Amino acid sequence: MKIAIVAAGSWGTALSLVLNDNGHDVCVWARNQSQVDKINETGMNEKYLKNISIPKSIKFTSNMKSAFEGAEIILFSVPSQQYQKTLEKMIEGGFMRQGVILINVSKGIDMNTLETMSQITQRLLPEQVFVTLSGPSHAEEVSQKLPTALVSASKSRKAAELVQDLFANDYIRVYTNPDVVGVEISGALKNIIALGAGISDGLGYGDNAKAALITRGINEIAYLGTAMGATVETFRGLAGVGDLIVTCTSMHSRNRRCGILIGQGHSFDESIEAIGMVVEGAYTIKSAYDLMVKFDLEMPITTELYKVLYEGKDARVAVNSLMSRQKKHEIDEYAKGFEIWE
Amino acid sequence: MKIAIVAAGSWGTALSLVLNDNGHDVCVWARNQSQVDKINETGMNEKYLKNISIPKSIKFTSNMKSAFEGAEIILFSVPSQQYQKTLEKMIEGGFMRQGVILINVSKGIDMNTLETMSQITQRLLPEQVFVTLSGPSHAEEVSQKLPTALVSASKSRKAAELVQDLFANDYIRVYTNPDVVGVEISGALKNIIALGAGISDGLGYGDNAKAALITRGINEIAYLGTAMGATVETFRGLAGVGDLIVTCTSMHSRNRRCGILIGQGHSFDESIEAIGMVVEGAYTIKSAYDLMVKFDLEMPITTELYKVLYEGKDARVAVNSLMSRQKKHEIDEYAKGFEIWE
Repeated sequence: MKIAIVAAGSWGTALSLVLNDNGHDVCVWARNQSQVDKINETGMNEKYLKNISIPKSIKFTSNMKSAFEGAEIILFSVPSQQYQKTLEKMIEGGFMRQGVILINVSKGIDMNTLETMSQITQRLLPEQVFVTLSGPSHAEEVSQKLPTALVSASKSRKAAELVQDLFANDYIRVYTNPDVVGVEISGALKNIIALGAGISDGLGYGDNAKAALITRGINEIAYLGTAMGATVETFRGLAGVGDLIVTCTSMHSRNRRCGILIGQGHSFDESIEAIGMVVEGAYTIKSAYDLMVKFDLEMPITTELYKVLYEGKDARVAVNSLMSRQKKHEIDEYAKGFEIWE
Repeated sequence: MKIAIVAAGSWGTALSLVLNDNGHDVCVWARNQSQVDKINETGMNEKYLKNISIPKSIKFTSNMKSAFEGAEIILFSVPSQQYQKTLEKMIEGGFMRQGVILINVSKGIDMNTLETMSQITQRLLPEQVFVTLSGPSHAEEVSQKLPTALVSASKSRKAAELVQDLFANDYIRVYTNPDVVGVEISGALKNIIALGAGISDGLGYGDNAKAALITRGINEIAYLGTAMGATVETFRGLAGVGDLIVTCTSMHSRNRRCGILIGQGHSFDESIEAIGMVVEGAYTIKSAYDLMVKFDLEMPITTELYKVLYEGKDARVAVNSLMSRQKKHEIDEYAKGFEIWE
């Protein structure tokens, strides 16, 4: 199939390699002509994907027309805060024909509208077939053809299965899931928890603390997600706890690395500066906090992290607040499950 | 309270430190007199908990009578294959009076009877109040007072809350849960998945593969657990995915370290020998496989790991079998959730 990819970051480039491996006709569009020239000259996208050769059969261009005209599938891999603007530009350009399937792989929530990428798409293009591709997948590993499992989520079973077929091969396994919002909320909020996990590491806490944070984190994500209409099982899945684990335990994660710097005592701004690429969690924490208020939920980890990042609360004090909350049953409804009350 | 601990391994010793910190009267029993002497002389349990000072207020003894007589609570921290034998010896000794609360912290399934520790206890002592204490908790970190969250599970709410109060302090947070079997199955089977995670690491696969294995692993554990009567939410909790994460990502885990050696090409027996302490997962894989057959379930990860460990299947071939299974919806019932079928 003829597939166009919007933007040549690490993930967009890694996915172009997979689609090329699977025999598709792939073109990657990037705004920056000098990046395109460099990739075409060197056969590498050195800034975003070190030491990976890019086959000549993948075209890179900054020309929208030559990238998108005739594409049957357009894959969006842009920072989530730029998703709406990018989509609007694509619509103006006349590239979002109705038959074109839109695949989104960016993970975040728009800070202004508090919408996920599928909700933005639904508003701007209510008839477009939309698939979100998510799951535990560092671009660096996918580009090295290391085994990876992904989730293809769409309201349309046919579209979800088409995307499953598009990416599946001997190193990529794809599961389908109809719960688009659940997959999106998981993918967005995991970056917050990864920031928290990094802070915990940076403070010198251990694996026990981090595992507790991840576990309570996925429950907090599920709490918001189900309030927004998602299915609770999604959060137990690859896009949920799977992606959360990979993000919180790997040094590939920018969000975690940013958190480590904060935990070590650097300011939030310094830490973001040091990472040098987009730290999605820094925006998502604001959106998640606003959504928590909107849906009137109690989300202690989100609240404490928001205070650390945006109100200058000391990270160690925040962890102590989480540890010393009132005694709890693990899940409130559980309290009903005791057979013996005495 | 007066609390006796059965056996001075890493976890038993670490928990004795917490209980002592919380002002309880703690006595640890160990069979081996020379171990007891060494701990009493050096103030350390060097073999099991390096570089940690043990306060004089914790008594260590090999004399059962002086350890257990008058104890209000007896905490069992013995390898799970020795649990029944140990409990029988305690009953013969007359130490399991009816009012005594039994806390178990070992994680496994008896290979002969396929029972969890609560099921063995229920059979031998149907009237005993039983609590299982679990969650993501490396002994090394707890003994360093690093933040840790635990789960206290019992059919009796009162007992679960008593154990919550017993351990909670500024570095230990305890949640209660009535689903004893779910907590036990989680704790036992995580060691299998940790062996698998180690094998994946040893083969040189990355974080993506490991996250996928952990995620599909927790679903497989939940599948068996719910067939045995557990509540599915438990597997999303600290004793479930929380403990699984810590075991699969930390070098503290013997099961993971054993798996790494296997993945690097060492034989199963060599690898166990090299670890030098009990590798619970090596026994649990047999029990889990037998339970899978007994309950007539499909558990692909358990099956492949059983083949690698006990039938000499090549680990790389096993991973390939898992990656190339037929296309799936993430959760079978999900397929019903698609709004659009075309």
